[in-house]
Amino acid sequence: MATLTEALDNGQQRAEAALHAVLPDPALTPSRLHEAMRYAALTPGKRLRPFLVYQAGALFGETGAALDAPACAVEMIHAYSLVHDDLPAMDDDDLRRGQPTCHRAFDEATAILVGDALQALAFRLIAEAGLVDAGRRIRMVEELARAVGSRGMAGGQAMDLAAVGRQLDIAELEDMHIHKTGALILASLRLGALCAPQAVSADAQAALDRYGHCIGLAFQVQDDVLDVTGDSRHTGKASGADARRDKPTYPGLIGLEESRRFAAELRDQAVDALSPFGAAGDTLRSLADYIIQRDH
Amino acid sequence: MATLTEALDNGQQRAEAALHAVLPDPALTPSRLHEAMRYAALTPGKRLRPFLVYQAGALFGETGAALDAPACAVEMIHAYSLVHDDLPAMDDDDLRRGQPTCHRAFDEATAILVGDALQALAFRLIAEAGLVDAGRRIRMVEELARAVGSRGMAGGQAMDLAAVGRQLDIAELEDMHIHKTGALILASLRLGALCAPQAVSADAQAALDRYGHCIGLAFQVQDDVLDVTGDSRHTGKASGADARRDKPTYPGLIGLEESRRFAAELRDQAVDALSPFGAAGDTLRSLADYIIQRDH
Repeated sequence: MATLTEALDNGQQRAEAALHAVLPDPALTPSRLHEAMRYAALTPGKRLRPFLVYQAGALFGETGAALDAPACAVEMIHAYSLVHDDLPAMDDDDLRRGQPTCHRAFDEATAILVGDALQALAFRLIAEAGLVDAGRRIRMVEELARAVGSRGMAGGQAMDLAAVGRQLDIAELEDMHIHKTGALILASLRLGALCAPQAVSADAQAALDRYGHCIGLAFQVQDDVLDVTGDSRHTGKASGADARRDKPTYPGLIGLEESRRFAAELRDQAVDALSPFGAAGDTLRSLADYIIQRDH
Repeated sequence: MATLTEALDNGQQRAEAALHAVLPDPALTPSRLHEAMRYAALTPGKRLRPFLVYQAGALFGETGAALDAPACAVEMIHAYSLVHDDLPAMDDDDLRRGQPTCHRAFDEATAILVGDALQALAFRLIAEAGLVDAGRRIRMVEELARAVGSRGMAGGQAMDLAAVGRQLDIAELEDMHIHKTGALILASLRLGALCAPQAVSADAQAALDRYGHCIGLAFQVQDDVLDVTGDSRHTGKASGADARRDKPTYPGLIGLEESRRFAAELRDQAVDALSPFGAAGDTLRSLADYIIQRDH
């Protein structure tokens, strides 16, 4: 996976440089809010969603600066969702990626506003992304807005909260994850594809969607596995946190071994979905492997 | 003001019918979130911002269904901001327009997600507003995103929170209000104008912006006046709530009479700004009067 590691590092550096440039300067009023937005969006992370934007763009022939705005937008949405999910009224987490969560480092009111303002900034970045024509930008706004609203990410978080202390079946758990994390992962790939110079065929789009669906779910299954088996020095959070919080997890529902088998099956399906792309899909193929092998 | 009252009623009914149609059905999962979104967005209100969309559209020759999506979008943004502002970590309000605030009627986590999902839905509505071409829709997204982000509404709320218990001067107070409420009022007018069949001239746009700036601030000055003098049966909140909360207000800074005089001056400036529009600006002229004469 030498190539993948390199590609991930490149994507991470590129996304972080782009985020740095577009996040508001703390010298501007309101300083504290801007400082907190930068804290939240620049907390070290894998930058998986920007990476998906870059890779989906590359798959269809776009590797240039046009991808930076959607890459930043999806990361800002992701960062906002973490800030709000960590709030006392939600998951009440003190640590995120080994650092104090936004409402701990700042305060709760600021953390609420950080999320609100990051969401607005994500849409603004896409609207202002002049390297892509207006027709495709408006489709990006639509994709992203659908992915993060009540029938997407925010809805998934509502399902997650409603599930605490309740027995979900495997279909309900999957449905929750498809909304909570899957929708934004799928949207990241779609936004990258929308930056391509030529329109993507319906077949190619369907293949990419199938890949996104599988890695989104695989990512979550692996997260649940790591919550049981992971080393908190790597995951940046306490092991068994979900189980202690009485959240439904794959290992809790189908056991650890079956969860690992399911993640591997999703990986195989993801790799299979990429077959129409030939060698051009190699990095995304390796990513599917990485997602279920990662230790944090 | 018979004509204005009628126009306001029409605008309110039109906006509420449109909101009803586009808010997600509580029969869809996650039901509780959808129920809470409807509760928050359909709480009785003046629908001032949709009215501004409709009136700015009409000023430039557009009165049709094209205006409904931006009208709903600005009201959803307004509703989301109220839900988040009312949260315990922010203003900690139990009542809004005489009804339990969203986090009291539902719960805090749901209220946070309601705001998040309403914001996303606002952008989605504009993106999907097929009656306006993609170029103007993307400009609407940009206007709205700028108006609600850290340099607009969310930033104004951050300034407001930072001002509690601190002495602001009149310039700082004005700056806070221009961000917190003024930006969305201005954006509402701009979104309506963007629906017009012909491009609006730079002079006409500047005149409309000037009007929006003045009524936005007049609205806030009058709000502060009503906080001191208002009847809680009309305002739907306890009198003197801002003062008790140690929030800076115009009457607190410059006195009640001077505040009323300032509001009247802003009304005059708003009316003056409309002079290029002749009789076509009559409803917006009456609105400027109404804003400083209203008792709730």
